Amino acid sequence: MRTSVAIIGAGPAGLILSRLLTRAGIDNVVLERRSRAYVESRIRAGVLEPGTVRLLDELGAATRLHREGLPHEGFTVAFDGRQQRFDLQALTNDRVTVYGQTELTRDLIELAVAKGEALVFEADDVALHGIDSDAPYVTYRKDGEAKRIDCDFIAGCDGSHGVSVNSIPSSLLQRYERIYPFGWLGVLADVPPCAHELIYCNHANGFALASMRSPTRSRYYIQCAATEKLEDWSDERFWDELEVRLGPDAAATVTRGPSIEKSVAPLRSLVIEPMQHGRLFLAGDAAHIVPPTGAKGLNLAVTDVIYLAEALNGFYRNRNDAALAGYSQRALARIWKAERFSWWFTGLTHRFPDADPFQRRLQLAELDYLCSSRAAATTLAENYIGLPL
Amino acid sequence: MRTSVAIIGAGPAGLILSRLLTRAGIDNVVLERRSRAYVESRIRAGVLEPGTVRLLDELGAATRLHREGLPHEGFTVAFDGRQQRFDLQALTNDRVTVYGQTELTRDLIELAVAKGEALVFEADDVALHGIDSDAPYVTYRKDGEAKRIDCDFIAGCDGSHGVSVNSIPSSLLQRYERIYPFGWLGVLADVPPCAHELIYCNHANGFALASMRSPTRSRYYIQCAATEKLEDWSDERFWDELEVRLGPDAAATVTRGPSIEKSVAPLRSLVIEPMQHGRLFLAGDAAHIVPPTGAKGLNLAVTDVIYLAEALNGFYRNRNDAALAGYSQRALARIWKAERFSWWFTGLTHRFPDADPFQRRLQLAELDYLCSSRAAATTLAENYIGLPL
Repeated sequence: MRTSVAIIGAGPAGLILSRLLTRAGIDNVVLERRSRAYVESRIRAGVLEPGTVRLLDELGAATRLHREGLPHEGFTVAFDGRQQRFDLQALTNDRVTVYGQTELTRDLIELAVAKGEALVFEADDVALHGIDSDAPYVTYRKDGEAKRIDCDFIAGCDGSHGVSVNSIPSSLLQRYERIYPFGWLGVLADVPPCAHELIYCNHANGFALASMRSPTRSRYYIQCAATEKLEDWSDERFWDELEVRLGPDAAATVTRGPSIEKSVAPLRSLVIEPMQHGRLFLAGDAAHIVPPTGAKGLNLAVTDVIYLAEALNGFYRNRNDAALAGYSQRALARIWKAERFSWWFTGLTHRFPDADPFQRRLQLAELDYLCSSRAAATTLAENYIGLPL
Repeated sequence: MRTSVAIIGAGPAGLILSRLLTRAGIDNVVLERRSRAYVESRIRAGVLEPGTVRLLDELGAATRLHREGLPHEGFTVAFDGRQQRFDLQALTNDRVTVYGQTELTRDLIELAVAKGEALVFEADDVALHGIDSDAPYVTYRKDGEAKRIDCDFIAGCDGSHGVSVNSIPSSLLQRYERIYPFGWLGVLADVPPCAHELIYCNHANGFALASMRSPTRSRYYIQCAATEKLEDWSDERFWDELEVRLGPDAAATVTRGPSIEKSVAPLRSLVIEPMQHGRLFLAGDAAHIVPPTGAKGLNLAVTDVIYLAEALNGFYRNRNDAALAGYSQRALARIWKAERFSWWFTGLTHRFPDADPFQRRLQLAELDYLCSSRAAATTLAENYIGLPL
């Protein structure tokens, strides 16, 4: 089999890239190691930047999103007994949309299937070959049968543990990494959220986030030790601690219910450079990870594939390598700003076990400044809705 | 002898406080350990916030400042081969004024002497007594003779090594401190500055600052080790290194000349809380130190004494302690924001010997963001000209 672009990974990055390429007349195949059911039930992020929504609109993938997604014109930061709402609409004239990545992935798969696109689930033993050459190809097994796809380019959209980034000799990659000294303990529950908008809390016991996926599904997180054991956290203990951190006002509106998912996630920042090796181009989590504070992960993956689709389109239109050669640098300029924002917003809202009193006061001073300066509030808001492409 | 307020220290904080009190009809005495000649020749900061200039205007202490001071409507940050000017006028509709603290101190002393104010230089062995009581007093020796001033209040404007802060039991004070892993090697020279505005450089060899005190007097700094030895730095070596860090464009306009002052200063952040103990009130460097990046030290001292004069005025008008009791908290709210800014601007422009590659990239990303976002540039500019009282 032969295609122009082999896309590894059927998460939002791979699926959106596939649509962008198909729309531009560039044939492509998406290979996904997991089953469709697995991919469609993975619980991930839930806040979409307006640019992400506009793109999904253009791709015809936003019908259900517009029906079920929740537009959010602001969010609240709570600290030191204070509550400050940041009005995205007033500060940036834009807003974000709460819509689970799970739902978005379903919509994108459904669209791909409806359009009859080449989308292979349960592709085993995917391996990349000849990425240094002009004739790369991908091998895999499907239902036990060996397969091969010859292609011009490979797009690695398969995350940080995927085969793509691991096919590049590590000596050719620079890794920039920060491990945070804590994790997030998250609970998903089919109860109405405690507030209409997100609340980010910096509490003496640690960070908490009141979030949601829909009007009937809440997503709550509390900062925990990176080594926290899930079995130590009964639902009741979680709700008790969450309410303490949210403070009495928000706690009064929390509806408790059985958790339908509960997990501990470590927090880290990671950037791998460059995002290209030969005919292989990385996009999304394959090249970078952000801590979830600020919800940049999915949105960054989307801008990566916008850049990558533009560069591939440039190549197929003009047979010119310049756009492809510039992809990594162009994407990284925006990625680093989002990495900076995610790092900064994490630092602002979490309690660091190793912070000295001076750092704690700086954190309070910065929160106080954010609440008193329109320019400072605007920097938070404009990063939250996503910096320009 | 009896007065209402005994002011310890004849730097800008003490001298301005004295004038503010005299203007409000509150009698006061300023005691200074050093000679007038010494105080008038101390080399210190040189960038005045517009609020500082407005206050000096009101006090009739700005005649020479307006004649000789240099209004600066912007400054430049250089990094990674780029130069970005921050237009204070456009971003904040305001500007700073370059005028040496040395000159300002002379003006204030001249004014105090002309008005016949009680200003005692070379006051030896100053000691504070009864600050816990309603009847504090200050003793000192002048020309070998023992003196005593009974007063209602003592204002400690004598810096971090002065007698004031050291008269408070250290168990009652909370110290918040950060020592930076570098210092500034500074040179003052009677040569025209290399540029009309300040240039802050983040160079691979370390930070550099091209500054000035007048059109014929330059003030240059380069980041150095905190333990740097002055004798290792000939003028020639300093100029050579400065030019490397400023980059070819600015270096081409550097005029070299013999240094008339050369020194190594450590960089630190320090806040002491509270700024009051009984009848003793601290202001300026006695309670807080900022790294010189951003030039907040002198300006913070000025806002402290504005708050303190208001509080003392409230007391003498209404015999009400409330304003005085609120002084520390009110002053600290603004001080911590300036501490945060000075720490942040230091972090943005210096090379940290212990920075890992991730931190270095964050620094670049933040500089890049500052250059591309008006909101971010405005946060820099509004802090630079001074946050509102």
